[in-house]
Order: sequence, then structure tokens, then C-alpha cells
Amino acid sequence: MREKTFVLAPDSFKESMTAKEVCVAMEKGLRKVYPSANYIHVPMADGGEGTVQSLVDASGGQIHYKEVTGPLGQPVTAKYGILGDGKTAAIEMASASGIHLVTPETKNPLNTTTYGTGELIRECLDQGIRKMIIGIGGSATNDGGTGMAEALGAKFLDEDGKPLPRGGGHLDRLARIDISSLDERLRHAELIVACDVTNPLCGEHGASSVFGPQKGATPEMVRRLDANLAHYAEVVKRQLEKDVRDIPGAGAAGGLGAGLLIFTQAVLRKGIGIVVEYTGLKEKLADADFVFTGEGGIDFQTKFGKTPYGVARAAKEHGKKVIAVAGYIGEGIDTLYAEGIDAVFGIVPGASGLEKLLAEGPRNVERTCENIARVLKLNE
Amino acid sequence: MREKTFVLAPDSFKESMTAKEVCVAMEKGLRKVYPSANYIHVPMADGGEGTVQSLVDASGGQIHYKEVTGPLGQPVTAKYGILGDGKTAAIEMASASGIHLVTPETKNPLNTTTYGTGELIRECLDQGIRKMIIGIGGSATNDGGTGMAEALGAKFLDEDGKPLPRGGGHLDRLARIDISSLDERLRHAELIVACDVTNPLCGEHGASSVFGPQKGATPEMVRRLDANLAHYAEVVKRQLEKDVRDIPGAGAAGGLGAGLLIFTQAVLRKGIGIVVEYTGLKEKLADADFVFTGEGGIDFQTKFGKTPYGVARAAKEHGKKVIAVAGYIGEGIDTLYAEGIDAVFGIVPGASGLEKLLAEGPRNVERTCENIARVLKLNE
Repeated sequence: MREKTFVLAPDSFKESMTAKEVCVAMEKGLRKVYPSANYIHVPMADGGEGTVQSLVDASGGQIHYKEVTGPLGQPVTAKYGILGDGKTAAIEMASASGIHLVTPETKNPLNTTTYGTGELIRECLDQGIRKMIIGIGGSATNDGGTGMAEALGAKFLDEDGKPLPRGGGHLDRLARIDISSLDERLRHAELIVACDVTNPLCGEHGASSVFGPQKGATPEMVRRLDANLAHYAEVVKRQLEKDVRDIPGAGAAGGLGAGLLIFTQAVLRKGIGIVVEYTGLKEKLADADFVFTGEGGIDFQTKFGKTPYGVARAAKEHGKKVIAVAGYIGEGIDTLYAEGIDAVFGIVPGASGLEKLLAEGPRNVERTCENIARVLKLNE
Repeated sequence: MREKTFVLAPDSFKESMTAKEVCVAMEKGLRKVYPSANYIHVPMADGGEGTVQSLVDASGGQIHYKEVTGPLGQPVTAKYGILGDGKTAAIEMASASGIHLVTPETKNPLNTTTYGTGELIRECLDQGIRKMIIGIGGSATNDGGTGMAEALGAKFLDEDGKPLPRGGGHLDRLARIDISSLDERLRHAELIVACDVTNPLCGEHGASSVFGPQKGATPEMVRRLDANLAHYAEVVKRQLEKDVRDIPGAGAAGGLGAGLLIFTQAVLRKGIGIVVEYTGLKEKLADADFVFTGEGGIDFQTKFGKTPYGVARAAKEHGKKVIAVAGYIGEGIDTLYAEGIDAVFGIVPGASGLEKLLAEGPRNVERTCENIARVLKLNE
């Protein structure tokens, strides 16, 4: 009999295992039943946290570090990846400008800046990179991407021609944008932005109203930030002849979506689609007998672009069988069967607190996959 | 294609579902994938708690109630079953004389009595029953089964020919046992005793030393009770010419094992073996494609006579495939595969407290079985 091929394409289990560690645990379990099968590891992500790690792991690339300016001006060591092809970078904006870099006491979306994200982009340009995948989830900022643009040479000036302080709270005084010093290399750089939200820049569904409060904005601050971003869009429209205000996704990451559209050659795409492409998942799937995926939690929301959904869709294009495991099984998983996830199993062995479960994730994935394999074997 | 047949033979999930309820939940899940399969319910037990319910459910019998004398003399309403054949009764001694019928304050193994268990046996004899399955786990007693025998007509007398007070604490004054009034019907009654322990009546592995402390015996009480049971065995040997002292299982249930061997036509057997026989499991297995079993908890101890083990052994005699589900997966389940349990799955959907899990047992069993069926289907 031909040896089976298993493609292992899980997301990370947040706070428990990286996607790569999940692959290892899955193989360990499956190998007890299929000792000489082929196992292809494709550590996945969905454009959110863990995307850099997954793309680096899946492509055999490398992680790099760079000290940049944090959301409140403080120095932070940000991480980015260069994929196995040596030509493509992967950046998570949160690494430079993320909400985890501010505290409940210091968070203030009037002042937080995406400057560090711009520095990361510049660093990649300096490295000769002309293709970047940028995940923009988890931001602490509401500056419309002005900080990012400033780091790349744009100037945001007041009526007197003086540079504005950084942060969305000061954009009411924006009179002119000077892009004469904007990094020329951006014109030839392809920025692929992982963006799963469709929020416009302003208004009740805009960046400030929807995401401002979780970044520390009071209702009064939300009102100010929203008006400031509207004014910013107006200036951009008038001076740069770009109308980004209502583009779906412009409001992502406090308007960084808009900023990238204004100042760079960016395209916004669904995160999972980008990861499926740049991990080479579809090619790797071609010979699979079974595809295993999984994530920390699986529920009805999984079908809104999470990894197990994306893996299942890609697998179904090849008619492959897909089994998912998860640390938490929520409501509505029966809606996932039609999306191509053939079966879902929880890995939790019994009543237990979260902390213990996070620690014993690998052995629980291993045991569950072993037993799934044992059932597969029953019907061979 | 021939329709599949699933035999569903779980134990109860303690404090969550009766075995019958587990069968219903299993079928509900499996039926989503195999809507027109045959489902045969065989609610199981292992001779411990739930055995009466299981045998009644599996045979289409009936539960009966009878007021009897509790372990401390108080009236208790005990439950017993008459199986579907109308000729066989099932009794759990704990229902009349169990540890749950005393409190931490009132428990006193010097005084607790198996009298109520004897009354239950008499009640069955009165009903015309001549075959009884008796589960003897969970006792509050340490009386060597003297209370049970007294309820059936035996007299335990002191030197002056006066009846002793009930309880193992008074057997030091036992001078003579009068069985002239012992219920004659016992001679023609077959008592099948579910007994998984091999403890002798006395000594360091005896009833008092091993089980006395959990019934409230202090070290001094253990010493007294052990000496008293030894004296009792001596009187029995001399007067009734029966030597039960070292028979494995004589020490079960505070020596009720010995009492049943002395005063009735009892045979001691492994609980799961009795349940397998009286549920007709083996016959029902004959046409199965898959056997599903399960229990509240499964771990390495499962192979010491628990239901999933017993079901798997019976299934393997017919070469059947066995899948188990459990609310708790403990250490060492990989040792169960060799015993015939082909795969084991936990049903818990995520980090959670026990109380919530107990409440949502049925839907978790249902979801897990549905997904197992989905995997089976994948390889058809």
C-alpha cells in the first residue's frame, strides 16, 4: 500500500503553542498509528498575531530584530521576518506599534504613533526588500498612518509650516502634507496588507468609533479623533488627489490602512489568503491524503476568515479531507462542516483551568491526533 | 450498501448522565452522520453504583422501592430492580446500607448494620424471586454481614443466649449462631455477588484494616473490628463448618462478602462480567459494525474491570471495533489500546469547571460522537 501523506496546517494555539509546535505535536500523535507516512508541516496564521512566525517557519526564512520607535515614542525591539526566498519580508505592525506596548495607564490614542511601523518598512527597503507582507492587527494607534509615513519621509505641517506632534490628536491642525522627501523606493515596493476588517476611515463604522475605545479613547476623544481623521482625509484628497476615506479597510489599525493606501503601493487582502499563498499551502496539499488543521479556539466565527476555514477552503479545491483540533470548541461548529472542515475535536482531557491546559497543549494535541488516526485506521 | 449497526454500551457518567442517557446522546450524534443506521442501546455498569439501573434499563425491567432499616437503624427507602425476565432481581447493598446514608458525624462502623440489605433480599424472596444479582460496593458497614443474616432469620447470641446488638463492634461477645430460623427459601436462591475486590475477611488486607478507616474507624476501632471479625469467623468455622476467613472477597463490604458466602448460596464474580451477561451484551454485539462505550473517567485503572474494558473484551471476542468517550481522560490510556479499546476521545469542549461540564454532558457526548462518525465516514 502507498504510504499516506498528512499535511499539517494549524494556526498557533495562542499562549500555548506556536503553529510549528502544533505541527510537531500533531505528527507525534499521528506517527504512532502511521509510522512511515509522509508529514508535511505548514505552520499557518491568518494575518493576525503569529503571521510573521508562520511565514518564516513555512518558508524556511529567518526572524530579524530592529530597534524602532514605540507607540509612545519609547524604544522597542520589533521583530520582522525575511521569507525563505530572501526577497519577501513579513511585518506585523503590532510588533512596533501594538496595544501590548502601552499600559492601561499610558494608553492614549491622541498621542500614539505608527512611526515605528514606518521604520520597519524603511529597514526592509534598506535590506533590498521590495515585497512586504504587513499584518496590521493589534494596533495601539489612531493616527491614520501619519507616523508610518513620517518615518518614510512625509511631513505633516501646520499653518506655520511646522511639523505636527505625532498622534491622531493633533491632526486637526494639519494644513499641508509635504511628500517631496518621501522614500522613492516605495514606488517600486509591493506592500501586501493583511486586513480582515472593512471599516472606512471615518464615521460611525470608522477607525475611531469602532476601535478607539479599546485603545483608551473616551467618547470625547473618539469624537475628536474621528473629526481629525476626516480633516486628514480632506487634506489628502485636496493635495494628493487620493480619496481613501470610504475605502473598506481604510479604518483598519487606527487608519493605518488609509495611510498605506495613500503613501505606498499597498493592496489590502484577506489575511488568510495571503498566508495560504505565501506558505505555498496549495502546492503542498496536492499529494495529501488528509489535512490536519486547528487553532486555540474554533466556533462559528472560524468561518469569517480564520485559519482552519482558509485551510479547509484550499483543501477542498483539491478534494482533500480536513480534520481540525482545538483547545476550545465553541458554539455553532456544525456550520463549519459545509465549509469543508470534515470533523472537529477538542483536545481538553477533562475539567481543568486554562493555565494548566495551556501548559499541556502539546500532549493533548498529540493524544487527540493519535486517536483520530486510530479511528481512520479502523475503516481502512 | 448495508446499513451500519452501532451498539452503544456506555457506563453512566457519574453525576452527569445515567448510562441510558449516554446511549441517547451517542445515538443523537451518530445519527446525524448515519441517519438510517441501526442503534442498539445497552446501558452498562460494572457492578458498582448504577448497576441496578443499567440492568433494568438494558433488560426492560422495572425499579421497585422498599422501606428498610438503614445502617444506623433509621428507616430508608431502598431501591431494587426486577429485570425484564421477571425472574431476576438486582440489588445494590448501598441502597440499604450505604456510606451515603450516614454523615461524617454519625458514621460509626462499630454500630452500622447490613440488616437493610437482608430485608431487601427477603423482599425479593417474597416476590418469588430466586435469582439475585447483588452489588456490594459503597457500604457503611463492618459487621461481617451479620445484620443481613439476622434479617433473614439467623440469630447472633451471647453467652447468656441473648441476641447481640447489631454492628461489628459487638461481635466479640458472639458465643453462638442459631440458624434454625434462617429463611428456608435461601437454599434455592442463587445469589450472584458482584465483587471486584479480593480482600480476605481479616488481617492487614482484611475488611477492617483496608476499608474501615473510610467508614470512620479510628486505628483503635480497626483493631477491635478486625479482632471481632476473626472471632466471628472462628465461631462460624466451629459451629457451621464453613471456613470463609481467607476466601478472596470475603472482606468486601465490611465482610458482607463473607456473610453471603456463609448464609446463602452466593457466588462472587467480577461485576463487569455479571453485567455483560445479564445485559445480553455479547448477543447484541453479534451484528455490530462499531461498538461505542464510555465512562465519566477513563485512565489506566479502566483495565482493572471497568465498563469500557469489559465492553471492549466482549467486543473483541467478536472482532468488533470499539470507540470510547469520556468526560475525563487520565494517565496511561495508551495501555488500553491493547485491551481492545481502539480509540478514546474526551468530550470536554474547553477550559471549564466540573459543575458546568456535568450539566452539559449530553451535548458534549453528542458532538464528540458526531465527529467520530464524520471521521469514520471519511474513510468509507
